[in-house]
Amino acid sequence: MTTQTTATGEPIVTNGVNVSALFETVDAVKRTPEIADFQFRVSNEWMGGDRNRTTVKDFHGACADHEHGNGPFQMDNGEPPVLLGEGEAPNPVEYVLHALAGCLTTTMVYHAAARGIAIESVTSELEGDLDLRGFLGMDETVRKGFSTVRVIMRVRSDADVETLQSLTQFSPVYDIVSKSLPVEVSVEKF
Amino acid sequence: MTTQTTATGEPIVTNGVNVSALFETVDAVKRTPEIADFQFRVSNEWMGGDRNRTTVKDFHGACADHEHGNGPFQMDNGEPPVLLGEGEAPNPVEYVLHALAGCLTTTMVYHAAARGIAIESVTSELEGDLDLRGFLGMDETVRKGFSTVRVIMRVRSDADVETLQSLTQFSPVYDIVSKSLPVEVSVEKF
Repeated sequence: MTTQTTATGEPIVTNGVNVSALFETVDAVKRTPEIADFQFRVSNEWMGGDRNRTTVKDFHGACADHEHGNGPFQMDNGEPPVLLGEGEAPNPVEYVLHALAGCLTTTMVYHAAARGIAIESVTSELEGDLDLRGFLGMDETVRKGFSTVRVIMRVRSDADVETLQSLTQFSPVYDIVSKSLPVEVSVEKF
Repeated sequence: MTTQTTATGEPIVTNGVNVSALFETVDAVKRTPEIADFQFRVSNEWMGGDRNRTTVKDFHGACADHEHGNGPFQMDNGEPPVLLGEGEAPNPVEYVLHALAGCLTTTMVYHAAARGIAIESVTSELEGDLDLRGFLGMDETVRKGFSTVRVIMRVRSDADVETLQSLTQFSPVYDIVSKSLPVEVSVEKF
């Protein structure tokens, strides 16, 4: 890829994505691969019972640390009454579905933009099946998380369905959820 | 497990969790396993560029559909400027870390309560490493999501570290992120 602009030197923007900047990023990563090394970070604090709060302040990428200019962002986890909570916030597995929905959408839109494919609208519906016996430790053969996640994406675009579907395969959260990943959990007392 | 209450018949509450209700849930699932079949659901709508919004209205569990009484909940995904977004909301992989932090915490707190272990405080810090070359499609050997996630949980409790660590292994989101999972993505045009 090479940097592309319009004939008048304006950046090309497709689907609300600055495609000129996207191609510049790819070119920069080719020259300096360390630009691609990102690290995302959150901190979380228990607030009692089912409630806890995450703060997102900064991340590393493109060879620098970045503060979220409109941050810090805060997000709360809760549990509904049937899962013994106060019902004041979505629960963690609902946030996983939220992350997956958003990542599939953003990935489709960005990759479509890079290929010059205009997308008019995207909506999606997600379902995750979970057998609570896993979490409760009642049956070791039952997994604790989702057994299956189903996603339906409804897209308005001139591109064909196969092309649109193939774009979603670049999604980081799709990769995280669908494939195994080393998660190192360390507990310290203080 | 059998239902437990205090000598005066009050529910036992440990760590803000109604332990009596937790044991009642376990007993109910033993009698009627379908109570444990949960399905979580979200819908999402693209708002242009890096922005999309999730709505969480209801879920299925304990043999019934439940509306979120304080819902519907809405959560926004965005991307920072260095990832060609407006920087107005956390991005999907940050939400994955948020979900993981919250689920590890809630799981530790609930399972500790069931064992009569009091927990005074929990904080956690999470980092996820991500090589952007995967998302950009520049190298097929680079995965698109996190290569590794590290979690440090700092807990104030009388229980020993090994016990506290073992409780986190029941976490649904830990299971979802660390182990592979079938994710069925279907794209439709309309």
